[in-house]
Parts: sequence; C-alpha cells; structure tokens
Amino acid sequence: MRIAVLTSGGDAPGMNAAVRAVVRKGIFNNCEIFGIREGFRGILADDIIPLQLGSVADVIQRGGTFLRTARCDEFKTSAGMDKAIANLQRREIEAVIVIGGDGSIRGANALNERGVIAVGIPGTIDNDIPATEVTIGFDTAVNTASNAIDKIRDTATSHQRTFIVELMGRRSGAIALAAGLAAGAESILVPELPFDLDEVCRRLEVSHRRGKLHSIILVAEGVASAYEVAAELTKRTNQDNRVIVLGHLQRGGSPTASDRILASRMASVAVDLVLAGKGGRLVVVQNGRYTDVDISSAMVQPAVFDEEAFKLAKILSI
Amino acid sequence: MRIAVLTSGGDAPGMNAAVRAVVRKGIFNNCEIFGIREGFRGILADDIIPLQLGSVADVIQRGGTFLRTARCDEFKTSAGMDKAIANLQRREIEAVIVIGGDGSIRGANALNERGVIAVGIPGTIDNDIPATEVTIGFDTAVNTASNAIDKIRDTATSHQRTFIVELMGRRSGAIALAAGLAAGAESILVPELPFDLDEVCRRLEVSHRRGKLHSIILVAEGVASAYEVAAELTKRTNQDNRVIVLGHLQRGGSPTASDRILASRMASVAVDLVLAGKGGRLVVVQNGRYTDVDISSAMVQPAVFDEEAFKLAKILSI
Amino acid sequence: MRIAVLTSGGDAPGMNAAVRAVVRKGIFNNCEIFGIREGFRGILADDIIPLQLGSVADVIQRGGTFLRTARCDEFKTSAGMDKAIANLQRREIEAVIVIGGDGSIRGANALNERGVIAVGIPGTIDNDIPATEVTIGFDTAVNTASNAIDKIRDTATSHQRTFIVELMGRRSGAIALAAGLAAGAESILVPELPFDLDEVCRRLEVSHRRGKLHSIILVAEGVASAYEVAAELTKRTNQDNRVIVLGHLQRGGSPTASDRILASRMASVAVDLVLAGKGGRLVVVQNGRYTDVDISSAMVQPAVFDEEAFKLAKILSI
Amino acid sequence: MRIAVLTSGGDAPGMNAAVRAVVRKGIFNNCEIFGIREGFRGILADDIIPLQLGSVADVIQRGGTFLRTARCDEFKTSAGMDKAIANLQRREIEAVIVIGGDGSIRGANALNERGVIAVGIPGTIDNDIPATEVTIGFDTAVNTASNAIDKIRDTATSHQRTFIVELMGRRSGAIALAAGLAAGAESILVPELPFDLDEVCRRLEVSHRRGKLHSIILVAEGVASAYEVAAELTKRTNQDNRVIVLGHLQRGGSPTASDRILASRMASVAVDLVLAGKGGRLVVVQNGRYTDVDISSAMVQPAVFDEEAFKLAKILSI
Repeated sequence: MRIAVLTSGGDAPGMNAAVRAVVRKGIFNNCEIFGIREGFRGILADDIIPLQLGSVADVIQRGGTFLRTARCDEFKTSAGMDKAIANLQRREIEAVIVIGGDGSIRGANALNERGVIAVGIPGTIDNDIPATEVTIGFDTAVNTASNAIDKIRDTATSHQRTFIVELMGRRSGAIALAAGLAAGAESILVPELPFDLDEVCRRLEVSHRRGKLHSIILVAEGVASAYEVAAELTKRTNQDNRVIVLGHLQRGGSPTASDRILASRMASVAVDLVLAGKGGRLVVVQNGRYTDVDISSAMVQPAVFDEEAFKLAKILSI
Repeated sequence: MRIAVLTSGGDAPGMNAAVRAVVRKGIFNNCEIFGIREGFRGILADDIIPLQLGSVADVIQRGGTFLRTARCDEFKTSAGMDKAIANLQRREIEAVIVIGGDGSIRGANALNERGVIAVGIPGTIDNDIPATEVTIGFDTAVNTASNAIDKIRDTATSHQRTFIVELMGRRSGAIALAAGLAAGAESILVPELPFDLDEVCRRLEVSHRRGKLHSIILVAEGVASAYEVAAELTKRTNQDNRVIVLGHLQRGGSPTASDRILASRMASVAVDLVLAGKGGRLVVVQNGRYTDVDISSAMVQPAVFDEEAFKLAKILSI
Repeated sequence: MRIAVLTSGGDAPGMNAAVRAVVRKGIFNNCEIFGIREGFRGILADDIIPLQLGSVADVIQRGGTFLRTARCDEFKTSAGMDKAIANLQRREIEAVIVIGGDGSIRGANALNERGVIAVGIPGTIDNDIPATEVTIGFDTAVNTASNAIDKIRDTATSHQRTFIVELMGRRSGAIALAAGLAAGAESILVPELPFDLDEVCRRLEVSHRRGKLHSIILVAEGVASAYEVAAELTKRTNQDNRVIVLGHLQRGGSPTASDRILASRMASVAVDLVLAGKGGRLVVVQNGRYTDVDISSAMVQPAVFDEEAFKLAKILSI
Repeated sequence: MRIAVLTSGGDAPGMNAAVRAVVRKGIFNNCEIFGIREGFRGILADDIIPLQLGSVADVIQRGGTFLRTARCDEFKTSAGMDKAIANLQRREIEAVIVIGGDGSIRGANALNERGVIAVGIPGTIDNDIPATEVTIGFDTAVNTASNAIDKIRDTATSHQRTFIVELMGRRSGAIALAAGLAAGAESILVPELPFDLDEVCRRLEVSHRRGKLHSIILVAEGVASAYEVAAELTKRTNQDNRVIVLGHLQRGGSPTASDRILASRMASVAVDLVLAGKGGRLVVVQNGRYTDVDISSAMVQPAVFDEEAFKLAKILSI
C-alpha cells in the first residue's frame, strides 16, 4: 500500500515524531511511504518525496516539522481538490495521513469524501480539537510556557512587580489554564469564562496586604491583548506592571517525552486505520485511551474546557 | 480541622507542588495545616511544623521535597504506631495526607486503621502503584531520562558506538519503556517481559548492515545491571560498547508542568476526601479521570505494564 | 569587620551566587555579614538582616536576587546619603559591597566618598559596564536568548517565515550580537553601528533566491522597536513577518555555570578589597583576568563593542 | 583554495558550529570546502565530501559532530601518512583544518610537516590543551555537569545523603573544578593536586555538626573511580553514600552560546591562517584574546590548573 503523510496548519512539537512513526510502522507493514511537503500545497504542487527508515533518523527529538507546513487556499476549491486527487492517483497513493489542527482535519475529511483513505491526527499546541483530550504539541507548549513563567517570576519577585503574560491558544484557554496551574499564576484570563478585572484587582490588593508584592497574570490570546489588559489594570490600580507576549516561542523546541509518545502512538493508530481501509477517521485520546472517531461528527462538537481545573487554579492562588 | 501532610519514600519531583496544594486548599477551607518532616519519622519525633500560605511560596517549581523524607522502621512496630497516634492526638491532628510510594501508602492505611483520617497520594518516579495510571514524578523522570538519551545519542552517532543505559524503576520497567519510546531507543529490556539477548544482538546486526553503526539499549534496573548486559553483549557480538547508569539524576530537577498539575489535582482530591472524613483512600487517575480507591484493595492488585506500547517501541526501532 | 552586601538595579542571574560568595568568604575571614534588602532603599529603611552560612544555602542556582532590588531616588539626594551613612554607622557596618549596573556602581562610589569602604561588582545582563569584559548575568541572558531563537527557528523553518526578534541590552547591542552569533541569526541590528534596512532586505532576497525562505533578524532594544522594524521591512519587501519581544524572560532563570563562577570569583575579589580597606574600586575582568579598577576613572570610559565579532556574524550568515 | 575540515578524538559540543564557520567563512573567501568524515580515517579512506552553505544549515545548535569522529592508528604510521598525503593531493586539497584534542592536533602538525597547510582548533570537553585558556565543548560540559549536580542536590537534600559524583576530564580536573565551583560541591578531588580523604571526612563531620546532613563530593576521573572513593569514605565515616558516574552525558547536548561563539571565532582564525598559508598553528585563547601559536612548541607545555579557583571552591564550601 502506498501511504502519504503531511503536516499542516501551525507547526507543533511532536509532528516529526508522528511522521517518523508513520514511516516506520508503515514500512514494518510493507507499505511504501511518501512525504508531502508543506501540507496540502504539496499535493497540488506534486511536491512529494519517498520516505525511508533513514529519512526519519534523528528527527524524533526535533521541534517543528521537517515536511514543513503552509496555508493553501487553492486546496479548498473544487478545482484544487480535483488536481489533488489526480496527483495522488497518478502516484498510486491510496491513503493520506494528515497531522494538524481543525482546518487540516477537515481537509483530510474532504480527501476522504473523494475516495482517498484519509485519516487525521490532531497536531496543534492549542489543544482545541473536540473529541480528543489532548493534541500533539500541547504538553510541550505548556512546559515552555510554564518554564518561561518560572523565569519571569525570578524577576517579578526580585523587583516586586506585576507581570501580564500573554499566551497562545487561539480561541482556547487551554494553554493558559495548564501553564497557570503549573506555574502558580495569580490570575488566569481565558476566553471560555467571563472574567472580571475588578476581581483581578482585588486579588492583587489582597496579596499586597499579605506582603506579597509581585504577581503574574496570564492572558490567553483569545481574551484580549496583554497590553490592553495591562493598561486597564494600571488605570484601576494605579500601579506599574510589565507585559510579556510569549508568542511563537511556544511553538518551538524539542518535544517533551509525553508529546513524542503521544505522537508515536497516534501515528500507530492512524496506520492501523489506513491498513484496515478506514478513512474519514480522527485519532483521539478518550478516557486516557487511544481510539478513533468519525471526523464529520467529531468536528461539530464543542471543545471542552476543564472548569474544575480552573476553579482549583483560583483556590491555589489565594 | 487540623490536617498534617508528609512525604515519604524516595523523593519525586512534584512532591512540593502536592504539599503546596494541600496547604493552600486546606487553608482555603479554613483548616490548619501542619508539615511533618522526614516522613513517618517526623510523627514519632514530633518534628511537626505549622504551614502557612507563605511556607509554600516559590516551591511549586522545586525538585525534591522541602519536608524531606527518610526511612523509619520504628513506625512499622506496634510501639511506634502507638507513639505516632499519641503524638498526633496531642496536637489534635485529625487527618494525615501521605505522599509517597507503596510502602508509604500502606503506612497511611495503618494510620487510618488506628482512627486517623489518612489518605494516600501516589508520589514516586517509578509509576508502579497499582490502581493509578500515573504517579507524581514519573513524567519528570521520563523527560530527564529521554533528554539524557538525546545527549548520549549525540556521542553515539558521532562515534558510531553502542551505549547501554540503565534506568531506574525498581521492579517496574515503566520509565525504561516510556523513555525508550520517547527517545527512540533501539532495544528496551524490562522486568515485566522475558527478553532475549540474542534478539538484541540480531537487531544490532541488522542495523549495522543497514549502515547504522550506533545503538542505544535501555536496561531497567529491575532486569539486571547495565554492566552485566554490556559484558554479555560484548561477548556475543565481539563489539565495544559503553555503559551509563543514570541513577539518582532521574529523581531530581524541576517538575514538568504535567507533574505539577497532577500533584496539585491529586492533592485537591486528597483534601476533599479528608474534609469528607473519608480515610483509607488512595487518590488515583483512572481512565484519565481523578478519583479515589480503597487502599487495602488497591494495593493487592498487580501493577499494569503497557504491552501495546512495548510492541510499538519494537516496531518503531526497526 | 562588619560587611554589608546589596543588589541593585535590574536583577541579573548570578546575583545570588555573588551574595553567597560574599557571605561565605566573609565568614571564612571572621567577618560579620549583613544583607541589605532592595538595594539602596534598604540602607535608608534600615532593612538590613544578618546573613549566616545557612542564609545562602541552596541559592547558588537560583535566578533573580533573594535580597531583592528596587529603585531609590532618595538615596541620590544629600539628605538621603546622610541618612544612609547614619544607618550604617549605627550598625557599625564599615564596608558595603554593591552588586549592580552602572547606576549602582556610582552609588557605591558615592558611599565610598563618604567614608564607607564601598566596592562595586558589575551585575547586569547588558554587559555594558566599561572596564570589564563581562558582567554577571550576561552569559545566562545570551543563552536564554539563543535558546529562544533556536525554538523560533523551528517554527520559522517549518513555515518559511521571517521573524524579527527584539532583545534587551538598553543602549548596548552586546546581547543581540552574542545571541545572534550563537544562534546564527541572518541579520543583527545594534545601536553601536549604523544599519541599513536596505541591506537587510537585500540579504533576505539573496537567501530567498538560494531557496532559504526563513530568516531571523535580531533587533537590540537600543535600536528601535521590533514592531517598527517589522512594519518597515513589510513595506519594503512586501512580505509577511512575525515579531517576538523576548523582554524580561532574558533576566530570569537559573544562572549558567559560567555566571555562577564569575559571580563567585568577583565576590571573592570584592571581599579581598574590603578586607584590605580599599574602597571605591570596581571588580572587573580584563584580559581574561580578575582584577579591580578605580570606579571614578572606569565609569567615564566608553563601553567597548566587539566589531570583529559583528563582522564575523555577517560573514557567517551569508 | 581547496580546504578540508575534520573532527577527531572525543566528540565535543560546538564541533558542528566550528565546521559551519569554516564552511561559511571559507566560501565567503571564494574557497572550496570539503568535509572529511570520521577524522583522519576519512583521509585514508578518501571519505571526503564537498560542503556547501546548505550542508551546514541548522547544525550550529547540534551536539556531537555530523562529520563523525573515529580513532585511526594507521594514520600514525609512515605508510598511512603517505596515503593521506596522496589522497589530499589527488583532490588538490591544499589545507586541512583539524578540530580535536591533543592527539588530533599533533596529527595536524604531522600533516603540516608533510607540506599540507594544516591548522589545529582545540575541540575537547576536557579543557586540557596547553596554550589555550579554553577549548570548544568545555563550557557545555561544565553546564551539563553542574545542572546534573543541581538535580542530584534535590535528592541529596530530601534524603540527607552524601553523593559521590564522578566527572570526566581524562588527566585533567578542569571540569570537576568548574562544575564544583558552579554547583557548590562540598569537596572536589582533582588529579592536579594531592588530596586527603581524611580532610573530606572532616568536612563531612563539620557540616553534619552544623546540621547539614547532605553533601556532594566530586571526583575527577583522573583521580580514581567514584566507587572506590565511596567505599573508602563508607569505611572511614561509617556512613552510607550514593555514587553517580556522569560519563558520556557530559559529551552531548546542544552547545551553550559560549561554545558556539568560541567555535565560530576559532574557526574564523583558522580560515585566516590557512588563507595566509600559515600551517602548523594552533588557534588559542590567551588573555581573553583569540590568537594562534606554534603547535610544536605549544604541545610540550604543561596544561595549567587554576589553583586560585580551587582554593576559592574550598572556602565557599565551608
């Protein structure tokens, strides 16, 4: 069987580990594996290379994606899809494994509807894919963010300052919540829940009265710009603060062990699905187990936000 | 309510985060919290200190345990237990939260049988506690081990050498398996499954013929000494190799975000149990959810080894 | 002899290691050591604590400064200085060791002119103190910055994007130059040398023609805001780019081995100077050797920028 | 001009950065650059590849050496040298830049005596090359070792234990001294100075009496096996201890910023020397400046041990 793999959307640490596992498990099962470069664009551009065992040597620990990623609006058109299918057919590629975020997974489904056995693997630092408890890259991004907050705390404590730190996550507060819980942030603002800057101010005042003069306030990018929040807090508390926007730092770096394992195991499930001829499926973790769900029905569910963890973060930052 | 917390057994990264969460959630619930130093020894020695919010400032990111840990054989005697109960009663401490490995959790159960509301939190890098999918410290230890293997691979590749790396885990191969999967080790020897050094040799030969002259072979300490394995491999393959015993390196270091969150959430469940007067319980993760089980029945179960992950590790290291 | 130590100005990783070495070498020489909290403010507020061996246990690896730091405008007034001298005299503190940047070192000199044996240790991540080749915190900041750029490169390569990264350094380009050389940045803009955005654009075009579609451009904060540079580049090249402002991240984190050693050795020289009754001196590294210079004459020299390293960075980024 | 570059001896972090700089600065100067694989063996085996700008993309941050390294006894023979010269001449390679330890540098000199313009760059983690204050890889190895000791200290403190840690360095105690100073080790045993286990025991007892029950004792591999030292200490103090042999961990990992800069700048000097036709030279750092010395005279000098730093380490660990 000829199987192709691509990475698409924002890059996430662990994508290389997933590609490696597709290649190795595929070859173990006597398949020929191909790498499509720069996501769906590579199908249209026929930018497709054969991948051998040696092609994925020494990539498991690398951040980013060696297959690269790119946007491709043409793929969303009917003509684009025709060209994609034609290119895959000419190379006799029967199956495509797509590693990426929600747009990418929908792309996999579109391929599947045109007869390619296409399977999705959730690869995004944002952990915002419905139906799966975790996505590839999330654990690394959370560790990067919480390590950064540890460093910021050194300075915050030394200078007794308030820092407003903006974290990634698009419309999701998952990174902010996990990093905040892990780093002991004093306040966390997420788009999933209403927030009250007056309460943030009250918390600042309470801890000031307790003699704790530094604070770290996390703002998920889906809420607002950290600069806006900082300006508003300054206005209300009449106190100085500093802003840090972590930005693309959170995308990079060597994946954590957990992300490498998650990527390897999800890729393994994906290869099994493809070998069984089951397309239109998304590999997920549910109740701590690796399994798969139908893409069409999965992607219409809302993503779940862990309100219990959020409440705990508040309790622990008294 | 007066609640005491202690850490016992081998130290594990995240123990401080667990103690911090016990203190903060306890105080949030209007309890008085006490820290017992050096595990059960501290109950007997009445080495018990009050813990305030400020006592656990700036500890969430610290490795080890600031309450320290020690062995205490006296606690296992009937006279020792009497003394422990007397000391706790004199201080009007009604509940004790014990963070540690299997021996420590049994100690919690023994306290519980004597009328103290005692709850266990699984804290050990070995991930060998039955009934829970993960223990505090495991994720950090696996990351430490896999980062170390990444470094060893730099040298292995440069010199085209075989390295035999010994990992911790007592009678469990969990660290070796996870680190091996994460770092792409060529072979993994664990105590849970029979192994065949001839197969290890065959794998070495196959990869040599493919032109890959370096290899990393992981040995869980429960299997054998890495030095013994290395000597035996040299004898069979007539090839040079190098040995590294990671040892206590795996216990230390700042906990990963995942371990800090796990520790905080398990501690939160423990405080809830204690507040509800439910002793003799062990906080666990089952099916990816935080819950609790009866200690007596939990500790007689065998720990589960993930054979599917092991098989995948083999497939991926072809 | 009674010696006090303080940290002042922006915090820098290694300040704790310097304080530790002052305490330990001082006690070794039978001195009594005091810590002044929050820089010169602590002298005025008489916020001064005795430091024993145990006070500096487990601080060598910590970022920030446990003595904290703050601005103090009052100290610069004549009345403030009188009060400072009076406070020190009442406690019979004969000598003060000041760890900080240029303002702090001038403060040490002012104390010295009033009869206190005051010695300066250059502690600032900016490496902008004349007369010394290196300052405490610089090596850590450069490593933090170059590791961050390594992570950014993962994403830049995966997406084939240009990133504009703003680095600290006040009026100095030292961090930008060193981090750029270490991380292989494509262009480095520093305040010490005129720069030409057209040349930056030309370099972008040349590497694009060679097929290298990602680039990292470093901007020292003394040059301009990275956002401004990004906007200007977009205008001239008609290409998208991304901005990251590393900010206070660069101040924090566990000091590198090199910074811990530098801090310990500079502190050792400072204690020797104080014991010999030599005030008004700044501890420096010159020609790779630890020595000391007169503060008044040192601080009027211009800081040196390493133009040869800058030229090399350009050559290596062709 | 056709210039070849090779890495030889034990691998050291930063070797890739040095090769990269040779390639880029060489190409900038219109040279053709070749990479010789696996050290001197590659000259004999004619295992020589052209290196372009793209060949060294994305290697500056990588540990190990992508050109690999190996032992080669044949090169030391007269016949081997004849073959080497013939192979280089046939390819019209006029100059060879050798990155490695003392044996490798002597190999460069041997080539030079046979008419090749051969220049040495000191690349070894051991920092044991006479005439230079620092070698490529030393800073990374010291950071790796001191970070490992930080982790070990977490456990040592939690359990109140003594750890004996064996560090690399062949006949040099440089890594042990620097890591010990950086990590605040309680005792450091180096081959350059006589040591007295009774004094180590006395220090253990003194700190025990002060209530500090944990200790870290570093042993340079040139002194003895850490296991031997541990056994002897147990005999004398009747106290338990733990042994860790860091081993090849110290060779790997991404080079520090300092090592990347050192490697780049030394490589730049090497290319300048070769372009000027000056062979038989070793690139060194003296008095904090990059310069070069005659190999023959340099290699007969003894390496210098920093006794002042050693004394300070003792004072700071009281």
